[in-house]
Parts: sequence; structure tokens; C-alpha cells
Amino acid sequence: MSVEQLTKDERKSWLDALSEWRLCRDDSAIERTFEFANFSEAFAFMTRVAMLAERKDHHPEWFNVYNKVEITLTTHDAGGLSLRDVKLARKIDKLLA
Amino acid sequence: MSVEQLTKDERKSWLDALSEWRLCRDDSAIERTFEFANFSEAFAFMTRVAMLAERKDHHPEWFNVYNKVEITLTTHDAGGLSLRDVKLARKIDKLLA
Repeated sequence: MSVEQLTKDERKSWLDALSEWRLCRDDSAIERTFEFANFSEAFAFMTRVAMLAERKDHHPEWFNVYNKVEITLTTHDAGGLSLRDVKLARKIDKLLA
Repeated sequence: MSVEQLTKDERKSWLDALSEWRLCRDDSAIERTFEFANFSEAFAFMTRVAMLAERKDHHPEWFNVYNKVEITLTTHDAGGLSLRDVKLARKIDKLLA
């Protein structure tokens, strides 16, 4: 899997398809906040994301408090956003579809 | 279970017994950072903490990136640290004993 950093144009075209995610950290990462009914549902979601992350060997930076989960994706090996982040974001979105 | 905020003296005496935790946020919370061999071990620990939190109906604010977990405990209902935080911190420590 590519660990090339996305170019500015690639970033734009991929992110157009990830409408719930926003660029952060000087465009080197994307983040999305999720809200659930309670902690149990939030952690169940986190468990599914953890499985995805482990399978892809690409892990999120994330924060949770009660029913909220904030996920940040970046590719340290690429020094910014890569296709690995886009792919993981899409898979995360699909969990909730 | 009490949601009274701990007094300054109580805070000191309880925290002396929680040597790995440090006060933060103007002494209204405690935090501890945990480090594991990899993401799988870090998330396994988080899952056990989630079970404790749910059982006690007292939930952490926490951040994870790969093998690191940062846990912050505070009691919103008490506007600061309460015995509930101390008890949860002790139970979390016991998971690793």
C-alpha cells in the first residue's frame, strides 16, 4: 500500500468524497467527530474501528469522552496524508452507513 | 456513590496512594499515560477499562495513538475530582498489577 503523501490536487479530489471529514494540522491530517447515544455504543464503534485499523496496520489517533469519538488520521511514514488515510476513513464511514 | 468534590487534604492523601497519576487541569482531574508493546495490547487494555467504566457508570476521557493510552479522570457532576475518580484509577492500576 502506498505511503506516498497525497498531492494537493489528489487531496482535494479524495476529500470531496469524504464530506464528513475535515483537513487539520496544516492539511497533514483529517479528522471527524462521531456522536452516539451513550458510552457503550461509542466504544462498540471504537472496537470495530480498532479491528479495521489492525487489519490494515494503519492506526488512528483518537479521543473519546462518553458518547463522543474524535478520530484523526495521518500517515507518519509519509509525513502527511496518504491514500491509507483516505481508505481507512472510507471504511470507517461504511461502518455507520 | 459520592459525587462530592474532594477537599484539598483528601486529594493529597488519596493521591499519595496513586503514585503514577498526576493532577492536571488546575487540580480538577488526574491523568496517567500507559505504554504497551503495540496497538493490539493497548486496545485490549482499553477494552478492560471500558468494562470497568461501564460497570461503575463513570467514564474516562482518553486518547490513544498506536501503543500509547492517556487517561484523564474527573467528575463533571462534582465539578472536579471525586472519590469516583480515585476508585476508578485504583481499579485501572490493578488491571496492570
